Amino acid sequence: MTIQPILINGEWQAAAANGTFRAVNPATREPIGEEYPVSTWPDVQAALDAATSAVVALRQIQPEQIAAFLEQYAANIEAHADALADLAHSETALPRDGRLRNNELPRTTGQLRQAATAARERSWSQATIDTKLNIRSMFGPLNGPVVVFGPNNFPFAFNGISGGDFAAAIAAGNPVIAKAHPGHPGTSRLFAEAARQAIQQTGLPSGMVQMLYHLSPEDGLRLVSHPLTGATGFTGSRAGGLRLKEAADRAGKPIYAEMSSVNPVYILPGALVERSDALAGEFVASCTLGAGQFCTNPGLLLLLAGEASELFTAKVAVEFETKAPGVLLTERSPQNLLDAITALTEHGAQIVTGGAAAQIAGYGFQNTLLRVAGETFLRSPDALQTEAFGAVSLFIFAKDAEELLAVTRTLEGSLTGSIYSASDASDDALYAALQPELRPRVGRLLNDKMPTGVAVSPGMNHGGPYPSTGHPGFTSVGIPASLHRFAALYSYDNVRAARLPPELTDRNPNGVMFRWIDGEWTRRDV
Amino acid sequence: MTIQPILINGEWQAAAANGTFRAVNPATREPIGEEYPVSTWPDVQAALDAATSAVVALRQIQPEQIAAFLEQYAANIEAHADALADLAHSETALPRDGRLRNNELPRTTGQLRQAATAARERSWSQATIDTKLNIRSMFGPLNGPVVVFGPNNFPFAFNGISGGDFAAAIAAGNPVIAKAHPGHPGTSRLFAEAARQAIQQTGLPSGMVQMLYHLSPEDGLRLVSHPLTGATGFTGSRAGGLRLKEAADRAGKPIYAEMSSVNPVYILPGALVERSDALAGEFVASCTLGAGQFCTNPGLLLLLAGEASELFTAKVAVEFETKAPGVLLTERSPQNLLDAITALTEHGAQIVTGGAAAQIAGYGFQNTLLRVAGETFLRSPDALQTEAFGAVSLFIFAKDAEELLAVTRTLEGSLTGSIYSASDASDDALYAALQPELRPRVGRLLNDKMPTGVAVSPGMNHGGPYPSTGHPGFTSVGIPASLHRFAALYSYDNVRAARLPPELTDRNPNGVMFRWIDGEWTRRDV
Repeated sequence: MTIQPILINGEWQAAAANGTFRAVNPATREPIGEEYPVSTWPDVQAALDAATSAVVALRQIQPEQIAAFLEQYAANIEAHADALADLAHSETALPRDGRLRNNELPRTTGQLRQAATAARERSWSQATIDTKLNIRSMFGPLNGPVVVFGPNNFPFAFNGISGGDFAAAIAAGNPVIAKAHPGHPGTSRLFAEAARQAIQQTGLPSGMVQMLYHLSPEDGLRLVSHPLTGATGFTGSRAGGLRLKEAADRAGKPIYAEMSSVNPVYILPGALVERSDALAGEFVASCTLGAGQFCTNPGLLLLLAGEASELFTAKVAVEFETKAPGVLLTERSPQNLLDAITALTEHGAQIVTGGAAAQIAGYGFQNTLLRVAGETFLRSPDALQTEAFGAVSLFIFAKDAEELLAVTRTLEGSLTGSIYSASDASDDALYAALQPELRPRVGRLLNDKMPTGVAVSPGMNHGGPYPSTGHPGFTSVGIPASLHRFAALYSYDNVRAARLPPELTDRNPNGVMFRWIDGEWTRRDV
Repeated sequence: MTIQPILINGEWQAAAANGTFRAVNPATREPIGEEYPVSTWPDVQAALDAATSAVVALRQIQPEQIAAFLEQYAANIEAHADALADLAHSETALPRDGRLRNNELPRTTGQLRQAATAARERSWSQATIDTKLNIRSMFGPLNGPVVVFGPNNFPFAFNGISGGDFAAAIAAGNPVIAKAHPGHPGTSRLFAEAARQAIQQTGLPSGMVQMLYHLSPEDGLRLVSHPLTGATGFTGSRAGGLRLKEAADRAGKPIYAEMSSVNPVYILPGALVERSDALAGEFVASCTLGAGQFCTNPGLLLLLAGEASELFTAKVAVEFETKAPGVLLTERSPQNLLDAITALTEHGAQIVTGGAAAQIAGYGFQNTLLRVAGETFLRSPDALQTEAFGAVSLFIFAKDAEELLAVTRTLEGSLTGSIYSASDASDDALYAALQPELRPRVGRLLNDKMPTGVAVSPGMNHGGPYPSTGHPGFTSVGIPASLHRFAALYSYDNVRAARLPPELTDRNPNGVMFRWIDGEWTRRDV
């Protein structure tokens, strides 16, 4: 069996590999498909060199052409939608139709098209003109490629070669070096080929999109901190994210790492009185979605102690036991969950149901519910926020509102926080006390809604305070905001009119972009 | 002599000091004024605790009140303008009237008032409403105070207790813990008292503005990385900035460090033909302004080798020799300059004039001009970009346009880059080749203008690629952009209407703020 080539400078080239790997079908535990290379530094250097040439070439390329590429790429993906869904299904065991083909894939192409629209429209650049002093500024591309590390749990929508970071980096005018996740190399290869063709079809530089399948950890650190690198987007584990972040930070290279999140969900007493069974169903659906392998999985649920909460917990436990465990993504997943659960129980959490690997053909773990008293939680708040990346949730029973607030004040930064309350005013006082404490600890605050849906909306924040991400001011989902991670601020002071970029000339270059002129957002010319 | 107290929680309190220091008048080398404390950790902890209470209290305070504070503070500063100018003059030897009283002070109060306007107007929060999905977002305050370390060279406009970082952090709704620069403690004390009174006058929380005079380096690192800290703004040396940045990065705390910059200035051949003497005068004025102690001081000047460049250099040398050396800020300054010049000459730079301490009553150093051939520069580009914080500049003589471009490609990130060209088209081809290489390496590109003026304009970028700052997407001067450093992104997903912050309700809360509603910046209601 030959080793698959890597995508460098517009061509599929043999890797300088020092090892190979294959994907494994998590539902059968069988290796499948081709051999893929573990690249060594010369591959990375080749990608950096070609990307650097692309950075230079892009200075002459207008946003319209970048938008055309993103749209062509979306169309190419759609032309191979069935093949992508088939392959991703076999590499991840995620449901082929309901999830991959009909949900994640349209989301991915929709995201690429939104990015195209933003690139063409150009308001994202926040062009600013001070006519009195003739000082003008805008956001523009970095002076180096964006490296994107995709996670294992979204083979389409967060893939380094097709996902949100990719779309944002390209739309902001940067080349991308994608580090595919080794969990779904075949899927990534199909994307890369679709991207390669789109580059040819739209005449972008050949180093615009490149892809490596696998790297040693050392080469990953060297890549994110390399002088030629512009910035990095990473979605994955906290341990991996923190290692890359440290290397990038030390080199003064921006890195946006989405690392981990326990996503607290509060169910206030009035809501429980009103719709306990419905909420149990909603929670179970959210917690077990994708076998619980979501960044926004509800890992903590907070209740006031009492009979209603006990009934709710019992109902959830029954549903957890009834519901067949989903297939996990990797061979290590069950052990990782066991380790996380052990960390929780060692600090006083009790297993209500589950807690062991599931006896299924694929990688599996029982749907697991744990519980802990608020008082116990407050003794070890850090350990009891250990993320378990699967269908595992810890219910915290606070003895009263005061303890609920005290627990909230110990929460680490999360991507999301949800509060369910009664439809009448009966929970309003508690909500009013809770909201100010929870709000600054999460990127997205939800009402009466589970956190697992992450709409590609301009109002979305898929980001949050550390350690959910490395910086509380940026989002990886939501356009145009996500583009700002991969941009630099450029000011033009007294620069002659003919030398200004189109976005900053007196005349609005496309008539539709908004510019901040003398204190107003406007589409008018100067 | 008693030890001056520190400002904690709205009151002047005795410091937990383990040492004291006094200011020194750089013009006389004499210690002056009171004894000021070197604080130990209990002082820092007290400031953090009071600031944390202020963070909580601020959740109930509307932007109008913050704006009122900033304006009241500006008025209080103006009421003490003469005393501030007198004291700052004696502590820094910067010119009392032309610089401090009539330039830096109005700039400082103007900045505070611009920040007040931004806080009141609220467009800076970039409120975003997706009406279809009912997902809304905005920038809001961090969940902890902003620590501001001010530099020694701008006792008003960049002071931790009164400058641009201070104004931006407060306007974004955060308390500030100011670490005054030990070079001008008396000046900082006057500001702190004016701020303290403004807090009382406008009813802000007592922990809104606090100030310490001096800390051990270890306590500084502990402060920027402390769990209660929100973010840090730092202006100062590269060594100090990198140490703080590493500690803050490791703790996941945002830090904005403005560290060093050589600010390349290009004089293209046509400009030299056209106005050589005028340019020499302009350059000398910029390079010697404030004894050269500006972040935007033109430390590198690039020329094409030839007779015109030799004449220009000779003219600058004569003016450097004629012009009396300015007074430097600290006792260490002359030795620091000598060390920097040694680093340059060790790598092939030659001294044209100057190069030694100046024999003046105060701390002084000769205006110093060095030169190096492009070829020599290219052998040691890093060492030859050593910043000399004073009236010192290195002229690089490129043998041709190609070498000029090659030198440009080795330039580190700077705050600014300036290109002077002929008023006719004779330099246009070279400009067109140079601009794409220089542009991404500097935060602000100037035409026909020296970099030392940093206008407080919305179009300003006083920031730049690493190592001039730690992140290329942020500016420390220019409102509203500077506020974003001290803000977090908060999304509201399906949050009930009555629970939304005013900025995100259907109704525009003040009728003037711009919001991004369904793809348009608008002042309308939903």
